[in-house]
Parts: sequence; structure tokens; C-alpha cells
Amino acid sequence: MLDTANANQTDIDALMLDIGRSARAAARPLAIAPTEQKNAALIAMADAILAGEEAILAANAIDVENGKASGLTGSFMDRLTLDSNRVAAIAKGIREVAELKDPVGEIMAAWERPNGLRIERVRTPLGVIGVIYESRPNVTADAGALCLKAGNAVILRGGSDSVHSSRAIHACLVKGLEKAGLPADAIQLVPVTDRAAVGAMLTGLEGTIDVIVPRGGKSLVARVQSEARVPVFAHLEGLCHIYVDASADLEMAKKIVVNSKMRRTGICGAAETLLVDSAAIGTHLMPILEALTEAGCEIRASATVLKVHPGFKPATEEDWRTEYLDAIIAVAIVDGVSGAIDHINRYSSNHTEAVLAEDPDVVERFFNEIDSAILLHNASTQFADGGEFGMGAEIGIATGKMHARGPVGVEQLTSFKYRVRGTGQVRP
Amino acid sequence: MLDTANANQTDIDALMLDIGRSARAAARPLAIAPTEQKNAALIAMADAILAGEEAILAANAIDVENGKASGLTGSFMDRLTLDSNRVAAIAKGIREVAELKDPVGEIMAAWERPNGLRIERVRTPLGVIGVIYESRPNVTADAGALCLKAGNAVILRGGSDSVHSSRAIHACLVKGLEKAGLPADAIQLVPVTDRAAVGAMLTGLEGTIDVIVPRGGKSLVARVQSEARVPVFAHLEGLCHIYVDASADLEMAKKIVVNSKMRRTGICGAAETLLVDSAAIGTHLMPILEALTEAGCEIRASATVLKVHPGFKPATEEDWRTEYLDAIIAVAIVDGVSGAIDHINRYSSNHTEAVLAEDPDVVERFFNEIDSAILLHNASTQFADGGEFGMGAEIGIATGKMHARGPVGVEQLTSFKYRVRGTGQVRP
Repeated sequence: MLDTANANQTDIDALMLDIGRSARAAARPLAIAPTEQKNAALIAMADAILAGEEAILAANAIDVENGKASGLTGSFMDRLTLDSNRVAAIAKGIREVAELKDPVGEIMAAWERPNGLRIERVRTPLGVIGVIYESRPNVTADAGALCLKAGNAVILRGGSDSVHSSRAIHACLVKGLEKAGLPADAIQLVPVTDRAAVGAMLTGLEGTIDVIVPRGGKSLVARVQSEARVPVFAHLEGLCHIYVDASADLEMAKKIVVNSKMRRTGICGAAETLLVDSAAIGTHLMPILEALTEAGCEIRASATVLKVHPGFKPATEEDWRTEYLDAIIAVAIVDGVSGAIDHINRYSSNHTEAVLAEDPDVVERFFNEIDSAILLHNASTQFADGGEFGMGAEIGIATGKMHARGPVGVEQLTSFKYRVRGTGQVRP
Repeated sequence: MLDTANANQTDIDALMLDIGRSARAAARPLAIAPTEQKNAALIAMADAILAGEEAILAANAIDVENGKASGLTGSFMDRLTLDSNRVAAIAKGIREVAELKDPVGEIMAAWERPNGLRIERVRTPLGVIGVIYESRPNVTADAGALCLKAGNAVILRGGSDSVHSSRAIHACLVKGLEKAGLPADAIQLVPVTDRAAVGAMLTGLEGTIDVIVPRGGKSLVARVQSEARVPVFAHLEGLCHIYVDASADLEMAKKIVVNSKMRRTGICGAAETLLVDSAAIGTHLMPILEALTEAGCEIRASATVLKVHPGFKPATEEDWRTEYLDAIIAVAIVDGVSGAIDHINRYSSNHTEAVLAEDPDVVERFFNEIDSAILLHNASTQFADGGEFGMGAEIGIATGKMHARGPVGVEQLTSFKYRVRGTGQVRP
């Protein structure tokens, strides 16, 4: 491993290029590896995680201590901290990936042409995936397992905050690969925490990286958008909205709003802005705000809300653009579903939005006229999750429109090719 | 229209940003326009093309004359030149797009979760597509029609060689939009031919362009790869290979090789390199080379070919990397299907490759171990075409692995979103 204390840009570029080339070399056998071999590796990985719990928790304790010392916030610490249950959940997650259907080789469509040509569209791996993430150590395992199942090599670059945890988890993944006879280079963790390593990955490492998956906050996303020279699965923040129509069932609305905001505040599917129909000011607004307050949530209220119910902290323009990832919610009054659509199309990060309404016309307009990855009716925004969608573990929720959108699971980590079988056809 | 003679970068940036913003504004009504309205526009466009034949051919005559004067090559001129039949084909192509199924709103998948959540994945338009192309004037119509059908606004930037033809065709498309009551800005042709306009599009025009589709030669592709700040449907060159195995039927092989190379030399699906199994030197090699020579094709032969049959022009390393788009083919001997796979994985642009063989094991290895968009068995590479695949008109053959691969038709020009219907579910 490189002595990171003395590493300069040239050293890091050379190191990263080496990583890229060995990932590309590993990708070829991986692409044609049988399902059984990939699953054997995954199960061995899960076993190694469970067997390595003590080492993983010890490594995590160092990250947690460093995180406290550097003043990380509550939701950041929530994402970072592991315990015995979370380690078991990581192993369980890997086992669940083993149980997923192997997407590689799946015939997505097949048809025959009048001239007798038989055409198949068949799933293939993408190749080499670069994952750049921040504090959550479980991403190391999730991303490694998912990429492997889809026949891809992966280069993982975790945040410096979780570096010890990620290294401990990565060691378990490599054990699994080796036990199944797959190349250890199929899942590589960048050994240095320098930002220069991220810059090198964003160049595509001389064509050795096929796609970058960034998982992180605004500054990472901005950097990726300005520097990336390879395709990116855009994962913007989750600035999720929940709209309460006057036709909404009040009891259901209270329950769903509180769950959307407060179940876990640190995940991207947590609601950040509550929009209430102006026709529901007298009926729904206050009971919902009271339920939120009771649950420990801070309210940041628009001028219209304050006119009716003074006393809340006022929201500024910045609040409509903020992913709090904390027990805070911005609240605005809108002019029915049209007003909700306008507000969301203006401020949303196109991740997830929910409409609470009994009027089907309201729901249809909300579903048709908002172009976010996930739209929910009468359900919590916290269902924005690949597992909850039945798609298995996910590498994140893509907010872009290209290739993958919404939960990025094993199927979304593939490409496809066409196989055409003829009997001597030439084109007239 | 801007006075192009006096346009400077600032003028062009301002002009392009205007185009981007009006495209974005047009995209919203287009995204929810009913199928009937989009089809009415397409049919009116086709009518306007037929009615405007005289004007289109007159405009094309100027381009052809300019092209001759500037010394454009045979296949370039073939792509550029229109006649009455080709104008009729353009109109027919638009009508065929009208007949295609509207992809927008199609439910791609639907399932229910154990907790009662009903999930649908539904097709949506991509938004605004930027198409940058070179000499073929028919791309103006194909791209305009396809983007419209998929509910997308499009910004077309044609090459200066076909500028008069493209403007004449574009005028017909606008007539169709207006007749159907759709915004004229839904299909815009960049009015200036400055390269700076391409540079502006590659920045994404302040987020108004969602994806760039480049259609052109190496220099355009290189520019797009280095400058693009938005997602790109990669369309590299078509460096297509055809491999003749010793098990191939000789008569079939002669017919398919000649068709793959010579039917039309200027299209991206034309074969550029012929690989012959070393075990077929005594049986297949010379008859196939004779058939090519008879058809008027120049042979560039590898050292091994020359050892057996001296007299051909020798191939250099550069020949294995060249898309001739002309009546020239490079020929090499390879060590069976393994040698063919190695050669193709080294030199291919991952567009289209064909295997001619009767041995099914050879075909399976070729199909599994080569990662190109289209693989054909016992059929001409010139079938690499959306129409021939039954996918309707296409905007090109994508060689990248993200989102679209192979023929990019109306379905590939869409994204999707998830619609989730609940009855009050909160996440435990």
C-alpha cells in the first residue's frame, strides 16, 4: 500500500491507473463467470463479515471516535455507526444479493423478423463501476456485492470518515472472492483517502472505468458534475416533498407525514418539505404540525403559515432548497395540486414526492405532471428504497434520467447486447 | 436569424441559450401531449415534405455543388445527395414513426408488495435532446420525428455540408408541428454553422439539454468526449468485423461478406475488416477475396495472407483501426474463433460483428465473449439498422453501454419513473 503521508498527485495517478487496469482485467473473467461461482463468493463474503464482526466493530469504533472529535452531525453519525445488529444486517444484505436472480444472460426480449432473422436482446455486465461514497460503511458491502452479482468489477472509494470500517469490511469481501476462485481485483477499495484519487477516477482512468456512481452530498455531486469524463449515475440529494391535499384523510396524513420525516431523518428518502393545500388550512394544517412537533420535529414555516399560526420559526428561500437530513421540516401553503406541482418542479431534486389525497384526479395530475424518479400516493416517502420496492439491495436512488432511475439494484447495473441468428440473409 | 458573418462567441452563446430555454419550455406540453396530436403533427410533416420536394431538392443541389467543389469523398457524397426517391423515403420514414406505438405512458412493469403497495414503472420522455450530426440531411427528419414521438423537444445541429437541405426539411417539420397545434420550438434547427454552437450545446445550455446524440466521424466524437458536460449517447464509428470460420458454408460466406462490405459502403454497418480462420486458408480465403475483388473491392492483406497469396496491397497496423466507409477491406488470418475474439476485442468500436460458421460452439463463444452492441450469425453486418430490427426509424446505432445500445429508436429515447399507490402505508 502507498504511504499516503508522502503521496503526491503523480504517485496517486499511477496508483489509480494500476487499480483501473487490474479492475478491467478482472472484469473479463467476471463477465462470463457462472451464477453459482458468483453466489458462492457472496455467501463466503457474508460468512466472513459475520466471522469478522469483532474486527469490523473495532475499526468502526476508531471512525466513530474520529467523527465525534471532528464534530460530525447527528445524522452523519447515525450513518457511520455500526453495531452488532448492523453488521448482521450487512451480512444478511449480501446473502440476499446471492438469492437475487442473476441478471447476466437474461433474454430481455426476443423476436423474429419477416426475413427469418431471430433477434434477442440479452443482458450483459456494464464492465467496471467506480463508486464514490461518503460516510456509510455499509455501502462498501452493498456496492461490492451488487456489482459482483451483475458481473461487474468495482472500484470503491469510501469517505475518509469511514475508512477504517470500510477497510475491515472490504477485507471480508476479498476473502469471499478468493474462496470462490474469483479474482481479488474484482472488488478493490482505493487505499488512499486523498481527494486526488477521486479526481483520477472521474477521468475514467484511461477508459478502464465505464460508469461512476457518486453517493454523497452537494459538494461531491458538484465536483462529479464538473469533472467527470465518464458516464455518471446521478445521485443528487433527496429533497423529497409531501403534499397534503384538502381531500386527504387526516389521520392517515398525520401518520404518513410523521413517518416520512421522522422514521429516519438521515436517509435520502426522508421528507424535507411539507406542502399543504390552501383549502386544508382550517382542517389539516395544525393537526399535522402538532403531530410533527410532538414527534420532536422543528417547523420552518412560510409567511402564509405564520399568518394563520404565528410562533413557528420562519422559513427563508434557502429552506425550500435544503436537504436537512435532520429533524427539521419546511412547511408551505400551496394553491391545490397545481400549486404543489409548481413548487415541486421548481425546488425538487427529482428523487421522491408523495401526494396524500382521496381525490383521484389530484393523484393523476400529481403522477403525470411531476417528473421525479418516484411518486407515491398515500404512502410514506421512506419507502423510496430498493429493498422496499422488492428489487433487493441497492447502490442508491438515481435522480438522473439516463439508464437507471430510482433504486439502482442489480438489474440496473447491467447493459445489454443484441444477438441475431440468421441462415444466410443478406440485405437487399 | 443571427447574421452569421458577424457572429462572435458571445452572440452564439446567447443565441444557443435562447434555443435551449425555448426547447425546455416546449418540452413540458410535449411530455403530456396525447398520442393523436403527436401523430397528426408527424403526418402533416410527411405531407409537407412531399409537397416541398422541389424546394428540398433545390436546396440539396446547392449542398451537392458545394460538396463537389470542396472535394468531398464518394461515400460522403452518397450520404449527402437526395433525389425524388430519397425525399419520398424521408416522408415515408416519418409516416412510419407515426405508426409506431407511443412509448410515453407505457407501463413497463407492475407489481404489488406484501404490504399492499402497488408499484408501476412507466415510460416518460427524456426531455430535451441535442443531436449533432454531419452530412446526412435525412437525419434532420428522422431525429425530429423520433424525438417528437417520444415526447422530447430536440435541438438539431446539422453539418455545414448539408445546411441548405436541412433547413428545407426543417421548415416542413415546423409546418407539421404548427398544423397540429404543438409548439414550433419542439424541433429547432440551430441557424448557425459555427463550431462554437456545438461547444455551447456540449455544455448543456445551463441544464436545458438532457442528453446529446452525436452522429459523425472521429473528430466530432473526440470533441464530444472531451467537452461534453451532459450525458451522451455514444455513437462511435462502425468498425465492423466479419469472421469466417473453417466450418462456414463457403457459398453463404461469399454472399454475406460481399453484401456486408459492398451493398452500401458509406453506412456504419458496413464491414471494414475480414477475419479468416487459419484452418480455412486452403478452402475459403481465396474464393472470398476473389468475390470481393470481382465486386470492385480493394483488398488490404495481412502478412499471413500475402504469404499465401502475394499481390494484394499490404495492410498496416493503421488498417485494423480504420473505418474506410469505402470499397476497401482489411483482411487478416486468425487462429480460429479465439483469434477472432482477440482481434475484435482489441480493435473493434463495439458496433457490430458477424460470425459465419456452422459449428454452434464457435457461434456461442463469439456471442458470449465479444461485447459489441450487435452480434450476428450467418447474416450480413448491414442488417445493423433499427428498421431492419423492426424497431422503426432510428437516430443511430449507439456503441456505448449506458441507457441505449444498438439501434436508438423511439423507445430508447425515453426514461421512466415509478408510480407507487398506497392506502396509508408507513415504513416500520
